[in-house]
Amino acid sequence: MPAFKTLEWKDDALVLLDQRLLPHEVRYVELCSPDEVAAAIRDMTVRGAPAIGAAAAYGLALTARASQAASAASLLDELRAAAELLQAARPTAVNLSWALARVLRAAAIPADPKEMRAAVLREAHAIAEEDVRTNKQIGLNALPLLPDEVTFIHHCNTGALATVDYGTALGVIRTAHEQGKKVFVYVDETRPRLQGARLTAWELSQLGIPHQIIVDGASGYVMKTRKVDAVVVGCDRVAANGDTANKIGTYNLALAARAHRVPFYVCGPTSTIDLNTPGGDQIRIEERPEEEITHIAGILLAPAGSPAFNPAFDITPAELISAIISEGGIARPPFDWSLPRVVAAARKKI
Amino acid sequence: MPAFKTLEWKDDALVLLDQRLLPHEVRYVELCSPDEVAAAIRDMTVRGAPAIGAAAAYGLALTARASQAASAASLLDELRAAAELLQAARPTAVNLSWALARVLRAAAIPADPKEMRAAVLREAHAIAEEDVRTNKQIGLNALPLLPDEVTFIHHCNTGALATVDYGTALGVIRTAHEQGKKVFVYVDETRPRLQGARLTAWELSQLGIPHQIIVDGASGYVMKTRKVDAVVVGCDRVAANGDTANKIGTYNLALAARAHRVPFYVCGPTSTIDLNTPGGDQIRIEERPEEEITHIAGILLAPAGSPAFNPAFDITPAELISAIISEGGIARPPFDWSLPRVVAAARKKI
Repeated sequence: MPAFKTLEWKDDALVLLDQRLLPHEVRYVELCSPDEVAAAIRDMTVRGAPAIGAAAAYGLALTARASQAASAASLLDELRAAAELLQAARPTAVNLSWALARVLRAAAIPADPKEMRAAVLREAHAIAEEDVRTNKQIGLNALPLLPDEVTFIHHCNTGALATVDYGTALGVIRTAHEQGKKVFVYVDETRPRLQGARLTAWELSQLGIPHQIIVDGASGYVMKTRKVDAVVVGCDRVAANGDTANKIGTYNLALAARAHRVPFYVCGPTSTIDLNTPGGDQIRIEERPEEEITHIAGILLAPAGSPAFNPAFDITPAELISAIISEGGIARPPFDWSLPRVVAAARKKI
Repeated sequence: MPAFKTLEWKDDALVLLDQRLLPHEVRYVELCSPDEVAAAIRDMTVRGAPAIGAAAAYGLALTARASQAASAASLLDELRAAAELLQAARPTAVNLSWALARVLRAAAIPADPKEMRAAVLREAHAIAEEDVRTNKQIGLNALPLLPDEVTFIHHCNTGALATVDYGTALGVIRTAHEQGKKVFVYVDETRPRLQGARLTAWELSQLGIPHQIIVDGASGYVMKTRKVDAVVVGCDRVAANGDTANKIGTYNLALAARAHRVPFYVCGPTSTIDLNTPGGDQIRIEERPEEEITHIAGILLAPAGSPAFNPAFDITPAELISAIISEGGIARPPFDWSLPRVVAAARKKI
């Protein structure tokens, strides 16, 4: 079992594993204000849709803890201001706004500021705890889809590091491994920030799961020349029609999977399913600094004058997705029919 | 005009621009033996199918120059041994064996060793000079395919650095620019060795051609969200049926181009067309060291224990290729019909 905690509430502070330093250094940072949490989300000290949702929830707990507000109304105002700040940190993943809305709803109930403070922290804890249970259920739900010897291609990082613990797509891989299947993983390195090579390979190493890192451009060649049973990816926002925003490179991978008739599975909690967004065209795609492409480990690789274009996510259209695996069950096309049903099923369970 | 020489015969030595140090340092190395040339091809001091063909030809010129052979027969034996050594340096690009065979054919004619030495150098010079003319003709041949405002996606490096001068796919871009078209280029960074970000961006900067570097996984997103008129790539070996071996990542790019109905053009000299290889399955794909993926600029990025799989090339099947543009003209599907015709046309011209 990995001996790290992606995020943890400890001594009235949010403690994050600094993912920018992995895999070579395991260092934790202690955050005491929502501004610090927003900065950590922005600079990707913490990343992964479920993890940033939970971190943002704790960002509101930090606001509540520090607040001098004497009335419930003024504390709620402070919480709303902090939520706006946290919301602005990254635009694409819906889990961020989902977690913030959920904590604000819980906060709005008590009439007393002291009770409100307790309610905020309680809800943040609930989000974090549910996330772990949710991920384990996603892994179990995926099991019937996988053969006993199963080779995956995996993109980005969707493991314990991208969540509170256990992981989504990597949780599916992990469950298969723990249930005795013979697992092998081709790890897309995932440029520009190399979450695959740095984070996923690190988690797989600790879990003892055999793997090889490949460059993102090699996935088609691997599918053509080796046996690949499934592509598994996470998601940052799933629209009502099934279109899925996920880390840049996911769409090219889905096209290669389609060409080779390899099942393409999107794995994530129902909190990532955004039934209010009709389709992928309505999802805002974050553009990040050019330096993430032109520099690696602080070293300039490209010519000094050459600009880069750095969209952080892309949209995989629903027609390339075989199934969306959540804690509420497996959604199959047509997704506009199946997604509301898995969302409803998940609500009943929790 | 770029102020560099990829390779040059100077004072009885082969002078190469060390491409491993670009774009930050322009340093030349002087090679005096075929062993040094083979090493430079292997470690990618020089790379690009046409460039390694010309470098290998000069490798035989170095053999001839240094040889003490008193008879034509023994000099020819030495040349054959050197050709074998050079041939083994990299297996995928056919230009290497094409250039070696051509020099050996020219060498076999004179009965006198002194004349043979002269013939070898003359043939190496001819290969180098023809390469530049060939590339300019490829650029001119491509012109009718391109609109007046043209946005390209380009993979790897196919410019003056990949050839003796001018370039193949990048030569097409350059011709379009020189002929007054309004050109923009999305530059695939091309992992693992970043020939796009390091070399193509450097050449485009010097030529004053507007461009942006993207990660390889972003090509589908770019085609979906921006206007892209053509994908242009080079080639390391084109089989008789049109299947094309080129830098890893080309196949995924071709799949994205097909999904978006963007024309996909393979650009290269007819010396890259290998009519003796029936299809892509018969092309040997070089696997290169894992460190090219796990390390960047000498820094280990992945966990120490994580292995990588590093195929240097992939095969783009003929059905994804809109046209193959050579100095002999434009080959269109069915390629088994059109390729022999452009090869024959090129032979007539030169």
